[in-house]
Amino acid sequence: MQLRTILERLARGEIGLEEAEKLIRSWEVRRLGETLKLDLGREVRMGLPEVILAQWKGEEDLRKAISGALEARGRALVSRISEGQIPIIEEFEREYHVRRSPNARVYVIRRRDLPSSQPKGKVGIIAAGTSDVPIAEEVRLMVEEGGCSTVRAYDAGVANLKRTLDAVADVVEEGADVIVAIAGMEGSLPSVVASLVDTLVIGLPTSVGYGMGGGGEAALLSMLQSCAPGLVVVNIDNSVAAAYAAISVCRR
Amino acid sequence: MQLRTILERLARGEIGLEEAEKLIRSWEVRRLGETLKLDLGREVRMGLPEVILAQWKGEEDLRKAISGALEARGRALVSRISEGQIPIIEEFEREYHVRRSPNARVYVIRRRDLPSSQPKGKVGIIAAGTSDVPIAEEVRLMVEEGGCSTVRAYDAGVANLKRTLDAVADVVEEGADVIVAIAGMEGSLPSVVASLVDTLVIGLPTSVGYGMGGGGEAALLSMLQSCAPGLVVVNIDNSVAAAYAAISVCRR
Amino acid sequence: MQLRTILERLARGEIGLEEAEKLIRSWEVRRLGETLKLDLGREVRMGLPEVILAQWKGEEDLRKAISGALEARGRALVSRISEGQIPIIEEFEREYHVRRSPNARVYVIRRRDLPSSQPKGKVGIIAAGTSDVPIAEEVRLMVEEGGCSTVRAYDAGVANLKRTLDAVADVVEEGADVIVAIAGMEGSLPSVVASLVDTLVIGLPTSVGYGMGGGGEAALLSMLQSCAPGLVVVNIDNSVAAAYAAISVCRR
Amino acid sequence: MQLRTILERLARGEIGLEEAEKLIRSWEVRRLGETLKLDLGREVRMGLPEVILAQWKGEEDLRKAISGALEARGRALVSRISEGQIPIIEEFEREYHVRRSPNARVYVIRRRDLPSSQPKGKVGIIAAGTSDVPIAEEVRLMVEEGGCSTVRAYDAGVANLKRTLDAVADVVEEGADVIVAIAGMEGSLPSVVASLVDTLVIGLPTSVGYGMGGGGEAALLSMLQSCAPGLVVVNIDNSVAAAYAAISVCRR
Amino acid sequence: MQLRTILERLARGEIGLEEAEKLIRSWEVRRLGETLKLDLGREVRMGLPEVILAQWKGEEDLRKAISGALEARGRALVSRISEGQIPIIEEFEREYHVRRSPNARVYVIRRRDLPSSQPKGKVGIIAAGTSDVPIAEEVRLMVEEGGCSTVRAYDAGVANLKRTLDAVADVVEEGADVIVAIAGMEGSLPSVVASLVDTLVIGLPTSVGYGMGGGGEAALLSMLQSCAPGLVVVNIDNSVAAAYAAISVCRR
Amino acid sequence: MQLRTILERLARGEIGLEEAEKLIRSWEVRRLGETLKLDLGREVRMGLPEVILAQWKGEEDLRKAISGALEARGRALVSRISEGQIPIIEEFEREYHVRRSPNARVYVIRRRDLPSSQPKGKVGIIAAGTSDVPIAEEVRLMVEEGGCSTVRAYDAGVANLKRTLDAVADVVEEGADVIVAIAGMEGSLPSVVASLVDTLVIGLPTSVGYGMGGGGEAALLSMLQSCAPGLVVVNIDNSVAAAYAAISVCRR
Amino acid sequence: MQLRTILERLARGEIGLEEAEKLIRSWEVRRLGETLKLDLGREVRMGLPEVILAQWKGEEDLRKAISGALEARGRALVSRISEGQIPIIEEFEREYHVRRSPNARVYVIRRRDLPSSQPKGKVGIIAAGTSDVPIAEEVRLMVEEGGCSTVRAYDAGVANLKRTLDAVADVVEEGADVIVAIAGMEGSLPSVVASLVDTLVIGLPTSVGYGMGGGGEAALLSMLQSCAPGLVVVNIDNSVAAAYAAISVCRR
Amino acid sequence: MQLRTILERLARGEIGLEEAEKLIRSWEVRRLGETLKLDLGREVRMGLPEVILAQWKGEEDLRKAISGALEARGRALVSRISEGQIPIIEEFEREYHVRRSPNARVYVIRRRDLPSSQPKGKVGIIAAGTSDVPIAEEVRLMVEEGGCSTVRAYDAGVANLKRTLDAVADVVEEGADVIVAIAGMEGSLPSVVASLVDTLVIGLPTSVGYGMGGGGEAALLSMLQSCAPGLVVVNIDNSVAAAYAAISVCRR
Repeated sequence: MQLRTILERLARGEIGLEEAEKLIRSWEVRRLGETLKLDLGREVRMGLPEVILAQWKGEEDLRKAISGALEARGRALVSRISEGQIPIIEEFEREYHVRRSPNARVYVIRRRDLPSSQPKGKVGIIAAGTSDVPIAEEVRLMVEEGGCSTVRAYDAGVANLKRTLDAVADVVEEGADVIVAIAGMEGSLPSVVASLVDTLVIGLPTSVGYGMGGGGEAALLSMLQSCAPGLVVVNIDNSVAAAYAAISVCRR
Repeated sequence: MQLRTILERLARGEIGLEEAEKLIRSWEVRRLGETLKLDLGREVRMGLPEVILAQWKGEEDLRKAISGALEARGRALVSRISEGQIPIIEEFEREYHVRRSPNARVYVIRRRDLPSSQPKGKVGIIAAGTSDVPIAEEVRLMVEEGGCSTVRAYDAGVANLKRTLDAVADVVEEGADVIVAIAGMEGSLPSVVASLVDTLVIGLPTSVGYGMGGGGEAALLSMLQSCAPGLVVVNIDNSVAAAYAAISVCRR
Repeated sequence: MQLRTILERLARGEIGLEEAEKLIRSWEVRRLGETLKLDLGREVRMGLPEVILAQWKGEEDLRKAISGALEARGRALVSRISEGQIPIIEEFEREYHVRRSPNARVYVIRRRDLPSSQPKGKVGIIAAGTSDVPIAEEVRLMVEEGGCSTVRAYDAGVANLKRTLDAVADVVEEGADVIVAIAGMEGSLPSVVASLVDTLVIGLPTSVGYGMGGGGEAALLSMLQSCAPGLVVVNIDNSVAAAYAAISVCRR
Repeated sequence: MQLRTILERLARGEIGLEEAEKLIRSWEVRRLGETLKLDLGREVRMGLPEVILAQWKGEEDLRKAISGALEARGRALVSRISEGQIPIIEEFEREYHVRRSPNARVYVIRRRDLPSSQPKGKVGIIAAGTSDVPIAEEVRLMVEEGGCSTVRAYDAGVANLKRTLDAVADVVEEGADVIVAIAGMEGSLPSVVASLVDTLVIGLPTSVGYGMGGGGEAALLSMLQSCAPGLVVVNIDNSVAAAYAAISVCRR
Repeated sequence: MQLRTILERLARGEIGLEEAEKLIRSWEVRRLGETLKLDLGREVRMGLPEVILAQWKGEEDLRKAISGALEARGRALVSRISEGQIPIIEEFEREYHVRRSPNARVYVIRRRDLPSSQPKGKVGIIAAGTSDVPIAEEVRLMVEEGGCSTVRAYDAGVANLKRTLDAVADVVEEGADVIVAIAGMEGSLPSVVASLVDTLVIGLPTSVGYGMGGGGEAALLSMLQSCAPGLVVVNIDNSVAAAYAAISVCRR
Repeated sequence: MQLRTILERLARGEIGLEEAEKLIRSWEVRRLGETLKLDLGREVRMGLPEVILAQWKGEEDLRKAISGALEARGRALVSRISEGQIPIIEEFEREYHVRRSPNARVYVIRRRDLPSSQPKGKVGIIAAGTSDVPIAEEVRLMVEEGGCSTVRAYDAGVANLKRTLDAVADVVEEGADVIVAIAGMEGSLPSVVASLVDTLVIGLPTSVGYGMGGGGEAALLSMLQSCAPGLVVVNIDNSVAAAYAAISVCRR
Repeated sequence: MQLRTILERLARGEIGLEEAEKLIRSWEVRRLGETLKLDLGREVRMGLPEVILAQWKGEEDLRKAISGALEARGRALVSRISEGQIPIIEEFEREYHVRRSPNARVYVIRRRDLPSSQPKGKVGIIAAGTSDVPIAEEVRLMVEEGGCSTVRAYDAGVANLKRTLDAVADVVEEGADVIVAIAGMEGSLPSVVASLVDTLVIGLPTSVGYGMGGGGEAALLSMLQSCAPGLVVVNIDNSVAAAYAAISVCRR
Repeated sequence: MQLRTILERLARGEIGLEEAEKLIRSWEVRRLGETLKLDLGREVRMGLPEVILAQWKGEEDLRKAISGALEARGRALVSRISEGQIPIIEEFEREYHVRRSPNARVYVIRRRDLPSSQPKGKVGIIAAGTSDVPIAEEVRLMVEEGGCSTVRAYDAGVANLKRTLDAVADVVEEGADVIVAIAGMEGSLPSVVASLVDTLVIGLPTSVGYGMGGGGEAALLSMLQSCAPGLVVVNIDNSVAAAYAAISVCRR
């Protein structure tokens, strides 16, 4: 509803002040002290709650953000957890269920009795090398929390094209609605995938690679330059952005 | 169908050699002399034929590519036409229908009797400044050729937030399935749009902007760094990539 | 007073040699050994003493710089303190009052009996995310030491536009003379703030953000490219520059 | 006035629907066809109307934008006019008064009977080399249109420090409220100026310079890295941003 | 022969002064005026004469370099000829035979009676897009002048993987000793080629591509980052380097 | 054999389904759990097995990859081992033979009874400084595993040209079929080497160097820009790529 | 003489006001209208007058700067003259003597009766390729104007090491006090020169080179990274800086 | 003496084989095992022995390099010593005299009885901030080892111009033959110094500075772009290059 409509209705008495404000403020925010506000409306809009970015957060802020999310929604998603921050997660493990994946830096903390939603849509996840698997698993975790099912094919880089073709075939046969294609180094996998399928492909470069163009730069640039149709890109290692995008396509 | 299945069926005589080869070669290619091959299968897979990149093509190659596409499919899409190449397009104007938009560099050349398909899905197109309109119109042209309807809102940059909010409201009310958000300079528009909607937003940076970060660099980086959920990115001025992606979402 | 005037007055005997030299040397400097000189005149000119940059300083030099400032002016401001340098600050805590903020790297060390000046002017401080708060608090600390009052609004990034609009409204209502707008990642906040207010906005990018354009690069470039009127920029994480600039506007 | 207050007043009948909408829509926008909207509210907020960016605009759009601004406000400011666009300006010269400066790319087009406002505040403009003068003059033109008086000192670069010291003395003696310091090449001038004055200094790098760090890059970076207190920065050649910022300080 | 050996032999009288000097000076150089020296020894060492770089050369210097090469060896290879320099080449066309390829910037000028050498080894040349063909043809021209035969497969980019696989199969079946794989844009072709063959692959990125990573940057970086075995790289558009390298492998 | 031929033979019954599939799937892959697949065919194609990239791999994945390679082929090559990963290698030392070189990060783990192949071809390895020796030794180790003999000349940088000339003479006299020239800092060595020999030179920049252009950037760029004939390049510190390339030339 | 001394002497009456001011103002400046000041003192200090940078100067400013210099000193040096500015130089040719070199962009305009000074010191100038000669000649012209003699050796790049060694030997035998070594592309020449001589070597990179690291970037970085002793650097194409530096060494 | 002359003399019997070889091999090299060669001739040519670069060297190589230098020449200079390598230096402290400076990373190890040479020429060393002092002291140490005397002025940055002017006056009055001007951050000091003196100024940027242009980038670029006459540049933190250059000027 647009602002004008809301105002007209308010002026005509069709809705009350409360209602009007609520409509305008549909992006609900919970204030946690001076420095922290939770965007509680995002779960409604996007199917996935706001993901808490652990990096750059002090210990107290991180703990407070997780508690707030758990109280408000029963679950908290946290990304880019560092080694030193893991104990903070573990504090919650006594009371809550914690989902994670080896070497991945995304954690999901859930109330043990929180029901799972019925999956809607399917996301294909193809990763180029073993080193890209942690990022791929982060996507999987979040996409599943967002209410989609997944189909995976890992270690499918173009340095052995046979692996790539098999992976694409597997994912297509499973009926993926959208594919997240993950690669570091030369970043050619998403181009090859997008040249073979008719769904949207979300290219997710990883920071794997050294020398000039390393740290994901060559991979990202190569994906941006791709001539393959239907390929879009998110930033290096940004599994959160890839997951939100994949969910938003699946949920339609 | 996977390779193995095809081979098994061939061996069991369920399909003939012709059929097997056709299945494997489902990406049909037409050879136009030594240096040019048309990817004719793409229209089937993606809903939009291969877009011919005019820049870097010699005169003869460009003319040949357009003719080939027209003969094979009845229409040709050409991107990044330079001033000097416009006469080549105009040669086709006698016989064919040519669609274009002011200052835009994408041209659509169609057989006059080619039927239009029934639109499927709707793409919202929001552009930040007047200077971004040519790129926005390129997206619109291609998306419509790809069989989707469009809703536009231009000159909606965040330097006047009122314009932005109106634009988003208009596009959302029209029921867009996916939004292409276009901006040069600081590139903040797609972030603001993505923070307000629940559909996929495709950020398309333009080369508008001077000084450090100019030519679209700041816009692209800002979109890549965005915290707004559901935002993906294509390269600077790459209206072709944005159009393919939008179509692939709409056509599902 | 210009050089020529001083010389003429000296020649005419209107001022003495002492006076002449003092006028020319109005930027007083105190020499602390071979490698360190304090710019004592800056407090007079700018309202805020020279801020001591701790990073890259050896232990002895840092200790000497702080002592010198305390003796000369009764207070010392130190920026970019590393973990390893905190004990040096703590040595002064027995005798002096130390002000700091969680996770921030600026420290103020004051003689306990040093009087506070009457605040003059008000600085608005708006920060995009929780991760930007330490830098925001550094600005606040220094601005207050510089004799201005402050009004804060944190966690106000554009990924939830509602928070942004509330923050701007709060700061404007409090009558801020100048606003420091702080953001990492996509750095869109200062553009949106500057589009809504009529005061000078100082954009302060932070090093929050990973992947391409991370570490504050995208944020800085986006601010430099902004079309919003009245927006100027300082370097990434440079709370000192932002504070000096804000004070110089407030003190007029 | 904040949204809540407006809504309450509307609900209490203290203001009418018209009034409420007007308050919320205080950033007035005039729609000029499909692709162009003028931000008419900016003049009220900032003292200077929206500056029309000529670069990247087609002929028709530029002409329309100027006409619209002239009709609405009686004057139009245009920046980054190219050689080829000058005839469009000249069309307006018959009927309107056009202000410009040699080699500068900003033009002011005014209704001949438009009254000048009483100047408020004074802006110092110091430029390093003769090559920086066009950009300096662009600042002067806009700052004067914004209702401030100016004092200039040009060709004052640090390669001859004597010139720099004289320039600063001149500008300070004239009582500038804020200084715009303009330099290309090594960009040291703003640092030296800021080390000598107690007002805000706006560093404006120009694209003068060749080789590595040329085109204004070294100048901008050097200004961003400056230790001099009270120095803020705008982008390379961005005289518009510098002018808005200077005006916003002067008008307080 | 090493320096010491030469000296010993000279001292023992086994070789004369003439001989000694000739051995040491085996890299023969012909001086053409003050500013130009031809490396005549290179043809002996590498099989291909020094290629004259036309770009950055004045008219007189270019003419002199070509004449000198023709007199000394009967042929001249010139690279990166600009539009404006073509008339200089055409002056030689009356007397000499000129080889060229459409849109390519390498020209071979030969004495009409200069015999062709028996080809030795075969170079495969695979190019991704029509826009890469001019660079590919430059490689072909020089490689053939260097005494190798060639097999070509153009328009074989990975955006249609079928084309790529066919091209590799063709080139491998023809028994190429070394493959030059040419691509702009995302530059994935050489990685895919190198993953399929057992010969050395020389990746040659072209300056085709716009937006971030355009002009060949993404292509070059992607090739440098490739995990495919047996892939080496030369600089963007550097057909000369690719040709020398291919010849040096074939001639073994 | 091409796809079509295989299909025809299959249809004609000349080869069985098994055979057809095997031919098409000639790039054999061994699946080790969900996240890891070994490219076992590479040893056949390239003479050197797939090199396991240790960096970015978790402990379990690294251990599994090594075991898998040892079981399948009797040897495992591992690159970019970090300090923390060395204990994993040492676990294998009880049962297997481990080859390494001081400060180098490549390890070869071999079954003690694995026979060595007869060397074929010779690779020259020239390194500029002592700091480049570890990378040079990595090349030597892998090249020898790939079945080539080597000749080395280290500490041969151009800062003392005498050393360079001696090194080149030594390597040429030993009859190297291809030369790997290794340098950090200014990276001039490969240019000088390539100007003196008639074999292919593979320039391998190292990450040695600080300041602007440090970390190997200047070295890589200088090699890419080289005018010396017959020089190709691999990425910074990428001894694996250099080794594969050298082997592929030697094995012809 | 230091400020204090001057002031004391003035106060003691040892020098008059005139004298004092003259001493302090020893950097004489002549004002030419509003936007131009000539640094007339530089010729006294450096032996070479201020060089007028033509690029970015408007026609009128350039003409005025030349006239001013000619009147004040009898000669004018102008750098980076564009094609379009040459007629301005030619205007002076009737009355003055103009020195120039083919393809070079530095011009010297002299009063016909201006005496030449006795040369003092000798500058060696070594250039790598024919394309670098124009920049080399610019250095020569200015160095000779600065009162030094020169010895040249051109087309001496390391792609043919023989040429390099000869060039160095020639320049050393002539007794150069300082050497300017000029190279584009890979920029290895200055490193090799500096490794062979015991005088200061000034590396001057040129903008010759294409692809990554082109335009002089690789050359500059390689010179900055050089391990050769006694090598310093100026910016790309900056013949003016190289000339001033060479003169300042020679004149000692 | 040139090669030809040597050969002629050898052939005429004027010099023996020994002599000839010695002349050609005047750059004496001592081989220390397989991976290390000392350039012993450099001390003769440059007045300062080869400086050993500790960074990137293994423990054994570093120890061997120091021992070798001490045996051959009685002293060893080592640069860029890391914390972890200091114990290696300390091993030598029992037997040798070690010179160092606080926080600096250059060490001089000397035989206790090694005589000092008579100083020749004087080097001025001006440093901008306290953080730049360690690099400045590295220059001083090496320049003194190279046989020149020094005059220092530290903490003289342009943020307090008074300090800068005093420093320059001090250094000029002491009669410096060449000045090394050291600065991080904005790097303006060398420009200001060079504008005030008539000797060569060697700009030495340091890695002091954070944010965009930090780590010395802005400082280096600003120095490269400087309009001040007589300024040359070495790389960031490269005290070794600055010292060699200063010595080579002083020793003339």
